[in-house]
Amino acid sequence: MPVNLTEPTDIAPVAGVQLQTIASGMRYRDRDDLLLMHFCEGTVSSALFTQNKFCAAPVLVAKEHLKQASARALLINAGNANAGTGQQGLDNCNSSCQSLSQVLDCDPQAVLPFSTGVIGEQMEMQALSSGITSFGDAAYNSSWVDAAKAIMTTDTVAKASSRTLIIDGQFVTVSGIAKGSGMICPNMATMLAFVATDAVVSQTVLDDCLKRATDASFNRITVDGDTSTNDAVVLSATGKAGHALLYDSSSDDAKAFYVAVHDVLLDLAQAIIRDGEGATKFVTVEVKGGKLQSDCEEIAYSIAHSPLVKTAMNASDPNWGRLLMAIGKAPTKYFDIDVLNLAINGLALIERGQPHPDYSEEQGQREFQKEEITISVDLNLGGESYTVWTSDLSHEYVRINADYRS
Amino acid sequence: MPVNLTEPTDIAPVAGVQLQTIASGMRYRDRDDLLLMHFCEGTVSSALFTQNKFCAAPVLVAKEHLKQASARALLINAGNANAGTGQQGLDNCNSSCQSLSQVLDCDPQAVLPFSTGVIGEQMEMQALSSGITSFGDAAYNSSWVDAAKAIMTTDTVAKASSRTLIIDGQFVTVSGIAKGSGMICPNMATMLAFVATDAVVSQTVLDDCLKRATDASFNRITVDGDTSTNDAVVLSATGKAGHALLYDSSSDDAKAFYVAVHDVLLDLAQAIIRDGEGATKFVTVEVKGGKLQSDCEEIAYSIAHSPLVKTAMNASDPNWGRLLMAIGKAPTKYFDIDVLNLAINGLALIERGQPHPDYSEEQGQREFQKEEITISVDLNLGGESYTVWTSDLSHEYVRINADYRS
Repeated sequence: MPVNLTEPTDIAPVAGVQLQTIASGMRYRDRDDLLLMHFCEGTVSSALFTQNKFCAAPVLVAKEHLKQASARALLINAGNANAGTGQQGLDNCNSSCQSLSQVLDCDPQAVLPFSTGVIGEQMEMQALSSGITSFGDAAYNSSWVDAAKAIMTTDTVAKASSRTLIIDGQFVTVSGIAKGSGMICPNMATMLAFVATDAVVSQTVLDDCLKRATDASFNRITVDGDTSTNDAVVLSATGKAGHALLYDSSSDDAKAFYVAVHDVLLDLAQAIIRDGEGATKFVTVEVKGGKLQSDCEEIAYSIAHSPLVKTAMNASDPNWGRLLMAIGKAPTKYFDIDVLNLAINGLALIERGQPHPDYSEEQGQREFQKEEITISVDLNLGGESYTVWTSDLSHEYVRINADYRS
Repeated sequence: MPVNLTEPTDIAPVAGVQLQTIASGMRYRDRDDLLLMHFCEGTVSSALFTQNKFCAAPVLVAKEHLKQASARALLINAGNANAGTGQQGLDNCNSSCQSLSQVLDCDPQAVLPFSTGVIGEQMEMQALSSGITSFGDAAYNSSWVDAAKAIMTTDTVAKASSRTLIIDGQFVTVSGIAKGSGMICPNMATMLAFVATDAVVSQTVLDDCLKRATDASFNRITVDGDTSTNDAVVLSATGKAGHALLYDSSSDDAKAFYVAVHDVLLDLAQAIIRDGEGATKFVTVEVKGGKLQSDCEEIAYSIAHSPLVKTAMNASDPNWGRLLMAIGKAPTKYFDIDVLNLAINGLALIERGQPHPDYSEEQGQREFQKEEITISVDLNLGGESYTVWTSDLSHEYVRINADYRS
């Protein structure tokens, strides 16, 4: 059961973007599992990929294609990651781009492929090919929510988000979808996310915008500390909104555009945590007062990755000793126990390194029982801070991941 | 259910060491939970402690005492960690050392205190004090196995090991006990271990011996990547064996002594993994062929810490894609996918970066189903290697850690 997350509604279409989903039958039955996102000519795209050294075939191909041409189409399949598949996996991936390029009458390099699902199995090429061919008859009648549904694997709720803003007197839309609920860890990329806008944006501004917004959203969420071989986030701008080109990141319009992109990415990132495998809590870990931002980051992830903290959260057990453990084991540079404060949902647990005299187990229990939990650490040493979002560790997480392939 | 681990037998007594356990009633009912390990005069001790910055009160006190006096007694309680207890916790700890020193007629600084159990609760001092007082009537009739039992918390099997060797024509014994099954991560210290020997050893040789043996044993095991606030390993040499003093680590006798200590520590370390919280598998992760040892270590821990790998192990699922994921996300310096080999229990999965042509899911299933699993990674880049030991991640782990305090 996702934590305070429901099916998205009101996802605005983006001028210049056409969507079509189909059921290829490759792995799933009775659902769409193949998505085509088709962009108009002149679309500018930016993308960030997993830092895992075992990149899946589609990641290798998409990176290469991005260097060679402007993307006209994203081809995304759910159910098979085409990772750990060696040369055959690469050949299969290239051949599916080739097929789609014939259908759409564009360069094969203008097709970016993305896959998510099981690692280590070859794609069922017959099903994939006939799926791709059927896009030739596509009426482009799929919605963004349909698109979000077609890329789900262990997700239980489709993830999409949308913002509109006015630039230069013109309405601009930013809409996006994402999938992912396990193998989620920071450092790009930890899921698939596809965001499009009709804004008129230069490549430089788009790259800068995506990089910064990803650092502040997808790179700050963790379910299990594991980084997938496949993940990617793509931001494409069709330029259909008709305002003056955004070419300077420091302009007011570019800043407003950044905020809209950031908000969509943060919505999607938090949705991934809320739908985290087996999640029953949505946990915000905020660390402030650091002398170095990296110290705050180390502590935030030490807490967010600790299985002992995450099982205590799951049990609604105010076992704050485990929080101290996780804070203390982080490899921080500047740290002083005697000035540290620790609170949960604003309830003080530790003040200047000592147990807070007014704290009672009963109060603690009340806060730990909530579905939305904010753990606040104040190092009281400086002005730096860092926030990450995570979920708890439940029986359900083990069940999902022990059973995923069977 | 521990993995291929049974109650220890044949733990040889150590001349110069007297053991007594009692039931203080502090937390547990109907079992001993307080251990006194009493050393003869002239005993030399070496100790290593947790690197967690939130040291428990007994860790702070024991470190201080070690600087001031030769240890004559170890006082160990199970059930309450006396961590996160602020100034009162320190006062309680000092007062219990004081009480025991009166009973034993030694300096308070000659008492080293150790605690394990729940964090964040004050010790029940009345029960502890009366327990300590009752040591005054002690007959010292407890065995090493009794001692191992008295320090258990979530352990399901007592952990003890023993070796004998001959130095200089004299029989020498090394015996030790340990506790720990969760909050286990490398970098000293990840559990409590108390090892004693009647060897005649200089402080320098003893320190060197403990450091090296710990690096090769306790610092290479991980259950959940979490490092406790309390943990410690102590090696004490009573000198009762009567051989010539070992004062040079490079002498043959010192080397033989090191091997015995190393073997006892490795037995205890592996016993902790075999009894890991909810463990159903004993997993050895060996990485070789690295250009840097640190690269091998990063990959070994990336695999051993990955919840996705650990749940796949639990399910006996030959989902080796998750192994690739864990290898690829490690922050290695030298790494080349195209020469990498991967095998499980000797069965080749990946050869020079490609799926092995002869591999079948059926063969994989057979190996992943075993209780003892060795994951072998060969980087094929150099001569360095690193091995760690870990367990799988099960429903039981979540149950134990979600319920521990209730």
